[in-house]
Amino acid sequence: MSGGSMVMQERAVRTRSALVRAAARAFDRNGYDGTSLSQIRAAAEMSMGALTFHFATKGELADAVQDEGWILTEARVRDALTPAGDPVDGLVALTLALAALMEEEPMVRSAARLTRERAGGRAWTSAWRPAAHALIERARASGVLPPVARPEVVADLVSHLIVGAEAQIRASAADAGRPAVDVGGQLARIWDLVLLPVRG
Amino acid sequence: MSGGSMVMQERAVRTRSALVRAAARAFDRNGYDGTSLSQIRAAAEMSMGALTFHFATKGELADAVQDEGWILTEARVRDALTPAGDPVDGLVALTLALAALMEEEPMVRSAARLTRERAGGRAWTSAWRPAAHALIERARASGVLPPVARPEVVADLVSHLIVGAEAQIRASAADAGRPAVDVGGQLARIWDLVLLPVRG
Repeated sequence: MSGGSMVMQERAVRTRSALVRAAARAFDRNGYDGTSLSQIRAAAEMSMGALTFHFATKGELADAVQDEGWILTEARVRDALTPAGDPVDGLVALTLALAALMEEEPMVRSAARLTRERAGGRAWTSAWRPAAHALIERARASGVLPPVARPEVVADLVSHLIVGAEAQIRASAADAGRPAVDVGGQLARIWDLVLLPVRG
Repeated sequence: MSGGSMVMQERAVRTRSALVRAAARAFDRNGYDGTSLSQIRAAAEMSMGALTFHFATKGELADAVQDEGWILTEARVRDALTPAGDPVDGLVALTLALAALMEEEPMVRSAARLTRERAGGRAWTSAWRPAAHALIERARASGVLPPVARPEVVADLVSHLIVGAEAQIRASAADAGRPAVDVGGQLARIWDLVLLPVRG
């Protein structure tokens, strides 16, 4: 590859990346139906030609946001867990890691939201639900969870906690005047309550 | 009041009510920033003049939705609770009543969403959090809740469950092709899990 075409390719990658980031912020804030291609174009400060060169439709941009959010999430979940660690501690760590990642990354909040709001694209929940299921199965196998703690019920509890955290983080991100909520601390205290019979 | 002016007043009340319902559906689906007055006007099939006669701004419409959602919620919460009933059962009943009301009423989902997305208006959470706090205090006073079950932690758990239910109900309402989720059954099973140490 010539030096000139490498520079052009690098520029294309940067442009594409800036468009996906602008789309993620817009989808995070206003949702899929509430966001237009022209809003994304304006937020990215690019021409409509540059945008449509990379993404022909809003759906393609949403797909790209969901892919990037999924990759970030799957990597963070892997980092948060130690293979032989206590599975119940792992479940708490997974929840807190997802909440922290959502606080940092509009890309991840956006992927979570888009998964609920449109039919296409990679489901964000599939980046962490298999890991949660594996932890719950290990905890059950080791006898620390009561029979009522069926994997799907525990996974639903994790989902609700994550959606609750996401909603609060989005509300804080949208309004600087809103008092900040310690989302991680809140989740940790809820887990302390829920895990009382397990940890004693 | 003459017969003619009574008819006119009734018509005005009906027009106003239709506008608030159309606004609730739009805010529920697309959020506050994602909804315009002209979308609401079109959904209500009215002229912009009729709309602005009743509501000068989008904020006034959002205030009206939050007021109506608050009133419906406060009444439902009151109906769901028996003053001398078991407070832990009451907490579960309150959660399930809120989820059922959200399934029925875009007005209520919209009020919950608007409370997160804008600074003004009546906070939807204030329609049920005082009742939840009272139940938690009664349960603690009767000794059935462990010390770790501080009122604000239990109330945060209820909030997360409700936001999780709201998100699933909204996703189902937006997409008829999505498999229906038994949101109430899901919440009941999570409560069974959480309340294991209390109920044995």
